[in-house]
Amino acid sequence: MEFITFSEDTLRNFTENVFKKMGCSDEHAQLAADVLIKADLRGIDSHGVARLTGYVRLWEKKRINPTPNIRIVHETATTATVDGDAGLGLVVAPFAMKVAIEKAEKYGSGWVAVKNSNHFGIAGYHALMAVEKDMIGYALTNASPLVAPTFSSERMLGTNPICYAFPAGKFPPVIVDMATSTAANGKLEIAQRQGKNVPEGWIQDKDGNAALHPADLKNGGSLLPLGSDREHGSHKGFGLSATVDILSAVLSGASYGPWAPPFVAFMDPLPNQPGEGLGHFLGAMRVDGFRPIEDFKSNMDNWIERFKNAKPIDENQKVIIPGEPELEAEKDRKINGIPLIDAVVNDLNEVAGKLGLQSLK
Amino acid sequence: MEFITFSEDTLRNFTENVFKKMGCSDEHAQLAADVLIKADLRGIDSHGVARLTGYVRLWEKKRINPTPNIRIVHETATTATVDGDAGLGLVVAPFAMKVAIEKAEKYGSGWVAVKNSNHFGIAGYHALMAVEKDMIGYALTNASPLVAPTFSSERMLGTNPICYAFPAGKFPPVIVDMATSTAANGKLEIAQRQGKNVPEGWIQDKDGNAALHPADLKNGGSLLPLGSDREHGSHKGFGLSATVDILSAVLSGASYGPWAPPFVAFMDPLPNQPGEGLGHFLGAMRVDGFRPIEDFKSNMDNWIERFKNAKPIDENQKVIIPGEPELEAEKDRKINGIPLIDAVVNDLNEVAGKLGLQSLK
Repeated sequence: MEFITFSEDTLRNFTENVFKKMGCSDEHAQLAADVLIKADLRGIDSHGVARLTGYVRLWEKKRINPTPNIRIVHETATTATVDGDAGLGLVVAPFAMKVAIEKAEKYGSGWVAVKNSNHFGIAGYHALMAVEKDMIGYALTNASPLVAPTFSSERMLGTNPICYAFPAGKFPPVIVDMATSTAANGKLEIAQRQGKNVPEGWIQDKDGNAALHPADLKNGGSLLPLGSDREHGSHKGFGLSATVDILSAVLSGASYGPWAPPFVAFMDPLPNQPGEGLGHFLGAMRVDGFRPIEDFKSNMDNWIERFKNAKPIDENQKVIIPGEPELEAEKDRKINGIPLIDAVVNDLNEVAGKLGLQSLK
Repeated sequence: MEFITFSEDTLRNFTENVFKKMGCSDEHAQLAADVLIKADLRGIDSHGVARLTGYVRLWEKKRINPTPNIRIVHETATTATVDGDAGLGLVVAPFAMKVAIEKAEKYGSGWVAVKNSNHFGIAGYHALMAVEKDMIGYALTNASPLVAPTFSSERMLGTNPICYAFPAGKFPPVIVDMATSTAANGKLEIAQRQGKNVPEGWIQDKDGNAALHPADLKNGGSLLPLGSDREHGSHKGFGLSATVDILSAVLSGASYGPWAPPFVAFMDPLPNQPGEGLGHFLGAMRVDGFRPIEDFKSNMDNWIERFKNAKPIDENQKVIIPGEPELEAEKDRKINGIPLIDAVVNDLNEVAGKLGLQSLK
């Protein structure tokens, strides 16, 4: 496995051009590329341009509409449901978050459920849109079924992420952005590529037995909810994942549970879908709806400082504030570029060839 | 260890009388008793009348105000901060949830941060208030510091619960109500009483080493965040607990992190408190702010049915829907009474004696 490093601009232009070739408007292509590049900059490689060919393949299968009519189909002063019209989640989710922010500006908070969408990239991108307005941001999405509930051997839920983002003062925002499974699927893919076993508690085989080899996941096994087993609280991970599924998909009218449409184009959605497409849930709350923003930021700085200085077990490893490693990655990669593994570059160039675009490099 | 079983009414009357002796109004005494009895009915014994003497001891130390002036100190159309005036969390939280529900009735959603409060009982009680109005309920609270962040040996966070409650149709509501630590403190207390070790991954000793004996917790150790260790996602449990702490306490102006005032009266709050008392966060969203309630309930029923019938690993243990075991307990205990361990009964009777009340039995 080798890495090839590209500048942010190179990858951004390439990605925009791919989306334009799919028929996206300039505005949508720029936004969708921005979401993917942000993931790469932040070091969340599994959700960056490595996914670009996945979106292209869904578009080839006519499961992504490049010119969607994204619209509000139901609303109150502070709630709304958005129909994504099978558009890219990468543009549908920012549309929905804008609606949430506008409602919050007027009424203190705004909450938007989204149906008929697709994979929305990193949750943190959307939640951070609120933070820029001195609001607390919230972003959830359901996802391709890969996770089994406690006591089951069936893939019933996605890695269903939860993201909360909080503005701070002198420190960067606190961003909790996490899959509700013990391990994200990206980590399994890395282990598989390297031919390595994974720790006990990450996956089970198709019969629900503890498993260590990533191949067991491919062969009908499943990821385990955060907590890994009942004794260590996997019912809590299941409960969180269920919450994400209900808010994102049952509340919006999207397809939930095992019916969530898979991201991989070679798997068709199950028949008899109970809803439309994938679902998201976005929210924004004005901090100054609760207390003056400067008081909050000053307490956030104190919170961050206190946690950074919590007594470490090992002097060389202090407590990590959620969102800190991603910010460090972003600083580094903006200067030094974004490393992609050769397999990803080959995949991107294959798609570029098909679309009549110049290869990367 | 022996159990003595009491009827709901007996325990309810006893509990109300204790709160009245503390100087609570009849209305507050009834409400506070209702929250505790609900925990016992639902089988969450650690949060029921077993805690009653703890509230009395805090009152003796003048850390609970029996006649609080609970009031909104800051608000927008859909957000508010409530000052609990050092009242019982058992009455402060329902006040705040009522405010959230009223805002949701008018504007679609309502969100209330609470400062200057105390332990609020089970989160599920408050979230269920919203469900009764066909709303989604949300309840969080920070709590006595017992949990160490990933990479730290210091108690920085409480078991900080998250509760989401969703109405359903023919099925009972789905209620996710969970501590964000791997094991709740109540489970440690049970192990300690029985002189038993706990599973690896529940606690660490004062230096941050893996520990198995509950005594290690008492001797300066800490509970571990959901996920147990870094490899199994303890940074996610830490992130969730941090989220609860920030929404409950930083947003409201309560004391956060290691400064959260301890529930046990023999431990004084740390000096230089950065805020006032304990904090909560309550929320309500009208389901029909997103889609017609009947459509939502019908999909919820389908969701529940599908998850109940997920392929089990063992034919004798099907998937448990969050909230189901508590409802089963409630049905049973309403008929057959509430079992209390003798140590709890003795403790309650000792307090009754001090307050000049009749003993239980």
